Amino acid sequence: MICLFPSPLVNIQPAAMHPFASTVATPPIAAPIALAAGHPTRQGEKMIETHREFPGKVLIIGFGSIGQGVLPLLLRHFQLKPSQLHIVAADHEGSEVAAQYGIRLSVIELTEVNYRQVLTPMMDQGDFLVNVSNDVASFSLIELCQRLGAMYIDTCIEPWAGGYTDTRVSPQARSNYALREQVLTLRKDFRNGPTSVLTHGANPGLVSHFVKQALMDLADAGHQKIYPPSDRAGWAQLARHLGIRVIQVAERDFQQTHSRKQPDEFINTWSVEGFVGEGCQPAELGWGSHEQHFPHDGQRHPHGCRSAIYLNQPGAATRVRSWTPQAGAYHGFLITHSEAISIADYLTVGNGEAPEYRPTVYYAYHPCDDAVLSLHELAGRNWQLQSRVKLVKEEIEHGHDELGVLLLGHAWGGYWYGSRLDIAEARRLAPHNGATSLQVTSAVVAAMDWAIRHPNQGIVEPEDLPHDEIIAFCRPYLGELVGAYTSWNPLQGRGWIFPEEVDHTDPWQFKNFRV
Amino acid sequence: MICLFPSPLVNIQPAAMHPFASTVATPPIAAPIALAAGHPTRQGEKMIETHREFPGKVLIIGFGSIGQGVLPLLLRHFQLKPSQLHIVAADHEGSEVAAQYGIRLSVIELTEVNYRQVLTPMMDQGDFLVNVSNDVASFSLIELCQRLGAMYIDTCIEPWAGGYTDTRVSPQARSNYALREQVLTLRKDFRNGPTSVLTHGANPGLVSHFVKQALMDLADAGHQKIYPPSDRAGWAQLARHLGIRVIQVAERDFQQTHSRKQPDEFINTWSVEGFVGEGCQPAELGWGSHEQHFPHDGQRHPHGCRSAIYLNQPGAATRVRSWTPQAGAYHGFLITHSEAISIADYLTVGNGEAPEYRPTVYYAYHPCDDAVLSLHELAGRNWQLQSRVKLVKEEIEHGHDELGVLLLGHAWGGYWYGSRLDIAEARRLAPHNGATSLQVTSAVVAAMDWAIRHPNQGIVEPEDLPHDEIIAFCRPYLGELVGAYTSWNPLQGRGWIFPEEVDHTDPWQFKNFRV
Repeated sequence: MICLFPSPLVNIQPAAMHPFASTVATPPIAAPIALAAGHPTRQGEKMIETHREFPGKVLIIGFGSIGQGVLPLLLRHFQLKPSQLHIVAADHEGSEVAAQYGIRLSVIELTEVNYRQVLTPMMDQGDFLVNVSNDVASFSLIELCQRLGAMYIDTCIEPWAGGYTDTRVSPQARSNYALREQVLTLRKDFRNGPTSVLTHGANPGLVSHFVKQALMDLADAGHQKIYPPSDRAGWAQLARHLGIRVIQVAERDFQQTHSRKQPDEFINTWSVEGFVGEGCQPAELGWGSHEQHFPHDGQRHPHGCRSAIYLNQPGAATRVRSWTPQAGAYHGFLITHSEAISIADYLTVGNGEAPEYRPTVYYAYHPCDDAVLSLHELAGRNWQLQSRVKLVKEEIEHGHDELGVLLLGHAWGGYWYGSRLDIAEARRLAPHNGATSLQVTSAVVAAMDWAIRHPNQGIVEPEDLPHDEIIAFCRPYLGELVGAYTSWNPLQGRGWIFPEEVDHTDPWQFKNFRV
Repeated sequence: MICLFPSPLVNIQPAAMHPFASTVATPPIAAPIALAAGHPTRQGEKMIETHREFPGKVLIIGFGSIGQGVLPLLLRHFQLKPSQLHIVAADHEGSEVAAQYGIRLSVIELTEVNYRQVLTPMMDQGDFLVNVSNDVASFSLIELCQRLGAMYIDTCIEPWAGGYTDTRVSPQARSNYALREQVLTLRKDFRNGPTSVLTHGANPGLVSHFVKQALMDLADAGHQKIYPPSDRAGWAQLARHLGIRVIQVAERDFQQTHSRKQPDEFINTWSVEGFVGEGCQPAELGWGSHEQHFPHDGQRHPHGCRSAIYLNQPGAATRVRSWTPQAGAYHGFLITHSEAISIADYLTVGNGEAPEYRPTVYYAYHPCDDAVLSLHELAGRNWQLQSRVKLVKEEIEHGHDELGVLLLGHAWGGYWYGSRLDIAEARRLAPHNGATSLQVTSAVVAAMDWAIRHPNQGIVEPEDLPHDEIIAFCRPYLGELVGAYTSWNPLQGRGWIFPEEVDHTDPWQFKNFRV
């Protein structure tokens, strides 16, 4: 087998080889994190410095935390003169940062009415549009880029302003599933068009590569000599072969500030508007072939790949049980994310609503503590956003972001693979970045680097990119890369004070995860 | 009519006199708190200094935050020499405070086995036992006090250690309803025994008096010349006459510390063990005669007054919609409290499970932010308490506790009446107290003052005490006393992004409040 990162990866081998081994009696908070000291993931490594040539122009749409964070990485990894870059933002928020790098920033609020007129003169064939905005529709920009011959990347399939909560349309139409299906329809019009990379931040984005690496680690742990599959069908067969039932994107943001959230205030470590927008979309999950209990509020989609379903309530009101190495068992929010749909689609054996095999896939997000309180307050206000919003960046005092994928149901029960990035390290690694943004911005630049080398791939998703190359590119920016086995399952410790309605015959039923 | 506090009470008169008037279009956070500046509730008042004589001994069981807070008030309001007091505590936590006042503290862990032997020699007829412990059963202490001729008070009907989560018995047996019924059985054995005041802290306790005052305010607002009823039946008829459907004890604790909750830590502004204990009991509520939708997980009790039901899940996992003047609409936790049962019982017209009239009564608690996060973490750990617990007291930097009763369903929709006590003011008013403790300790001393004057009332509940006297006694300690009308109801702002299953025909159904 090919082991991509043999020694430096902090890979905690399974303590017991039988399924659901209960190696951790008490809540498994301390046990699985006995990592080697220091940062073994980067021992002996040096920062990848490709300085790739790029003769075209780079147009950045949106200049909030991700836009400001991605700029220094673009200038580090690509041979770019300031005159090759141009930022279009809806406000002056990042003006100082743009000025610091000598980059032109035009304050223009892009809308469905003006975007074509504004952007067309700014782009030529071979240019690159980096959409890190809120409220500028991915579909429209991709279509425009395809027509103009420009490459494209975003970190989220964004609708026009208000699209996430547009109550004139059904919850189905506000789902990420519908947004993704809509964008994918462009594929038939633009075969072999300029490369447009969809949703390639941390998650969605990087986590799709983590899933593949975790599958390879599990194959390795079973002493199965398997080469990395070369196509979608191969990965799906591997996941099925390993018995993966559930894939959670399991994230715990431990970052804290000195100052406290005040009443009527929403605090987050990344865009508040972005988080509230997706939090108010329907909860969505890739719906696995092993699931026996369709949710009472679940809805199927009338068209498309059928890999996912949605619940008739906001993701920010939907809690699920999950686990990370440092948090142990926790309740996360099932916020809709396009990786839940695309990974489930990618790993499907068969088709449609009743495939031969498909894992259940969803995001189980524990944002920073102040964001948990903000969500609690927001729910109490029936999803009317607080008067004040605060994106904490410089204010973060300490803490890290633990972001990974938790593969469940295989022979060892659970395996978490991901990044643990400390705020102090993130700041040291790249200016204008924090732990949350750097996991995103490094993945954006990694995918751009790949796109520049593969400029005519048309519209692609993270799963279409080579996981080993992307992880290798991002790795210097990811802090510790951790692989940790766990015997945790969502039935553990349940029902001791009150009877709970669970399915004891199969711990991996979604019903058992949902709070 | 008799208006007890005509001018100093901050009473916001109803802006509109018709039911459900929507005077507040946006979330009503700013609108209803346009209070007079300063602390008008106490203008021109002076601290009540009764210095009541008490020749007996005072035995304090438990010396945590409430024990330490009540001591200086006892010494202020009663003529007591240090030698008249004795503290029995399970640990040395409060030793320094006891020594500061020259009070003897014996460290003895009271159990079901030793309590009789330990306490009997310490008490004589006419003494007063103040039970502010955790894990020492009220039933046992009351029975002992009745036999010995000593008076008694507690702030909660406590079982022996582990009783709240004793999974060998049914959730019903762990309910406050069952604990209350058990204690009330002692009444028949000890008629006209020494006065034993049950559950007389802030809530349960003070809030029962707030309910009566709020009923009088509503009668007054309707220009109804009603004298305060002189008995239970009269109060029940008044509540019915006013159309009260729901009484929430609506509390928002706004206190904050500099330091932050760390992972695997439970923080609260009062006893963590006390809060977690009651939070893990079944959610309980007085069940009103207007309720049309019995909860799917609801359970009735097989015996007793039948005023309440319980849900087959922890209160800490049960969220309800509520409102306070400063918080506006919020989600609180439906933590079981004996006032939910006793107030519903007290205000019942008729009997049993289908009375002519009974309001729905429950506690909708928003603890301090760090406690909300602690509960979120605790739920993720399936109710296994965190390794570290912290009662913040000196660490509190600012904030206040807003504790009141919200009467709903009458001609003006909603009326909140309660105390808003700032941490700085609480510290100024009494040593060793914070905002949360002072609302409790002042009510304890108020009830003791009443008991000493009425020493042979047997076993009584807060509703049996005169509300005007108790409020008058406590008032110097309660910060602002606020009466605020509101047009809020639990259907307000609902269902705009997703359809929700609600009963539009009657906003006051419990179904509409439950999250």
